[in-house]
Amino acid sequence: MMKAVVLVAHGSRREASNEEVRSMARQMAERSGRPVVAAFLELAEPSIPDGIVQVIDAGADEVVVVPHFLSAGRHVSEDIPAEVERARALRPDARIRLADYLGRSERLLDALLELADAG
Amino acid sequence: MMKAVVLVAHGSRREASNEEVRSMARQMAERSGRPVVAAFLELAEPSIPDGIVQVIDAGADEVVVVPHFLSAGRHVSEDIPAEVERARALRPDARIRLADYLGRSERLLDALLELADAG
Repeated sequence: MMKAVVLVAHGSRREASNEEVRSMARQMAERSGRPVVAAFLELAEPSIPDGIVQVIDAGADEVVVVPHFLSAGRHVSEDIPAEVERARALRPDARIRLADYLGRSERLLDALLELADAG
Repeated sequence: MMKAVVLVAHGSRREASNEEVRSMARQMAERSGRPVVAAFLELAEPSIPDGIVQVIDAGADEVVVVPHFLSAGRHVSEDIPAEVERARALRPDARIRLADYLGRSERLLDALLELADAG
């Protein structure tokens, strides 16, 4: 049983922003000891279905999709779930779960308070 | 000596997104015991200079501006600093400091790992 994570961001024309997400995915992999890949809704590669299929074909039988989004707009409520459905149709035997988006994490409050106190 | 925080987000046509930011500001105020207001770069009120002036005129002599942004695009590197400069010109006696943006917080990694593990 191998569990993998797909960290999903919007994607940007500014490649440095996409790299920030890929760097976060690498840090998550190092800390968790699990495969973690970054995937993007648009403007960057891989797409969300491609990212999910990639980790399944590399051996994962469970995939958790984590949206790297601060607010629950249409991307979080509609577009990402639709992309996850596409991946489920491509790999029906895998367990693919969509996690809460980052903005829902109670740890954000700690992060913001720490930034306000620093410096 | 009273320190206040201005939590700065982009602003959205979707009012629920702006409310998410205001709700986070309220939680920060409750946890820190300091005045915390939300302010927006565009599409929502108050503006960043207005939010900063508001907490200074309510008695703060030190203001920390915390960008509620995940990546360091033009908004974080240019637009927010320019808005902070406008506030400094309006209230030259206050100490107004711009904190790191949320995406730079090392706590984000913990938040994402926790979301991936939950459920």
